[in-house]
Amino acid sequence: MVEIITSTQNQRVKQWKKLQTKKGRQQSQSYLLDGWHLVQEALQSQVQITALIGTKAELALHNDIVARVNQVYQVTGGIMQEITATVTPQGIAAVVELPLLQLKTIPKSGKWLLLDRVQDPGNVGTMVRTADAAGFDGVVAGKGTVDFFSPKVMRSMQGSQFHISLATAELSDLIPAMQANGIPVYGTELNPQAISYHELPQSDQVAFVMGNEGQGMADNLLQLTTKNVYIPMPGQAESLNVAVSAGILMFSVN
Amino acid sequence: MVEIITSTQNQRVKQWKKLQTKKGRQQSQSYLLDGWHLVQEALQSQVQITALIGTKAELALHNDIVARVNQVYQVTGGIMQEITATVTPQGIAAVVELPLLQLKTIPKSGKWLLLDRVQDPGNVGTMVRTADAAGFDGVVAGKGTVDFFSPKVMRSMQGSQFHISLATAELSDLIPAMQANGIPVYGTELNPQAISYHELPQSDQVAFVMGNEGQGMADNLLQLTTKNVYIPMPGQAESLNVAVSAGILMFSVN
Repeated sequence: MVEIITSTQNQRVKQWKKLQTKKGRQQSQSYLLDGWHLVQEALQSQVQITALIGTKAELALHNDIVARVNQVYQVTGGIMQEITATVTPQGIAAVVELPLLQLKTIPKSGKWLLLDRVQDPGNVGTMVRTADAAGFDGVVAGKGTVDFFSPKVMRSMQGSQFHISLATAELSDLIPAMQANGIPVYGTELNPQAISYHELPQSDQVAFVMGNEGQGMADNLLQLTTKNVYIPMPGQAESLNVAVSAGILMFSVN
Repeated sequence: MVEIITSTQNQRVKQWKKLQTKKGRQQSQSYLLDGWHLVQEALQSQVQITALIGTKAELALHNDIVARVNQVYQVTGGIMQEITATVTPQGIAAVVELPLLQLKTIPKSGKWLLLDRVQDPGNVGTMVRTADAAGFDGVVAGKGTVDFFSPKVMRSMQGSQFHISLATAELSDLIPAMQANGIPVYGTELNPQAISYHELPQSDQVAFVMGNEGQGMADNLLQLTTKNVYIPMPGQAESLNVAVSAGILMFSVN
């Protein structure tokens, strides 16, 4: 059944709009997907879609998908703008369950990317997308890293949340626990003890920790790592963008 | 001599504000640097600073720099916001000469990154910064690529315009001309003839062409390249961010 909503003052519209904030997402334990590509990824991954929201024109184009969702809402273009916070929304969105993020078991194998206070949503989303492409098992955000399900992170993540594990954890506990399970954890900082990433062995057991854009990794974490690695830079730039660094490191162990 | 300006309606303020647009930059053949880091890079690189603009507090902190510039303007925080288009400006900016961008001679050696209609300013700026870090000689923008000197590109470029060459050129002319000079030009697309980037030789003579974020490289350019390369992706993501791809490729030939 399709319910028609025309007013931006409608209570459901107000609730959907709240999903733009972390508080709103946590209160309702759900988040908003924007665009057909993500809605299709959600359907394929068996994630529970609690509401499909679209303009009349977009819903009419995809009867097959509409038929697979219980709660469908036909809304105006103005409402789509309001809830997606984009100037030119794609005309389709879905509300889906927020996954449980607290890491429940310590990884015993695999490839992992750990994020220490990474602030820029584009960087976080791009790193998740890159980890997915590189065949990594998951990305773990420590305290102070931006929320995976903010609209800006999702724009860069491009659906990779449906392919790999995303979790939050206290990194100062997680790093020694992964090491105890046999996974080497490499910090990323240039210091006298650091080794070039060219010296890393190819491996299907590895974790990299990426640090804050301005300050790098926290000192207490750098002291916990198995080794610290750096990317030799023959040019004059003082540093690399954190998502570019992560990409070079993750693909170097493939 | 320091001239004091307090009104956002001042003619100079209006001129500086115009530097946010490509048209404004081309008319005055100058662009605006935002922040001490970039001003210092400009001084070190012997670029002509035609105006140093700062709040009273910031100018007082750097008498050494103020003494090296002929035209210094003391302005209000509101004027700084107006001309830098940032909510929290750093309180210091400089107007500098726009470099001549039209590529004058075809490179005979070195490492080059060519950009085919790359749209996102953050991606373009990050690629210039990464090319600089990787020791590349320059970045050449083909038609349809965003302007190197837009405020958003400069935020990601972080001063790398002072370290490597930036130029514009017609890529369909440049690619065969570079090849005639002995530089292999690699396109980036997954097609049956493409080779993995792992098969590229280490070399100090190379060019990569990066394509538009959504559409990839133009067909006519793909047909001109020496070979096309791809990055094998063991995971499920359909593609990589263009700046991450460029980083992996540029560091792979180091």
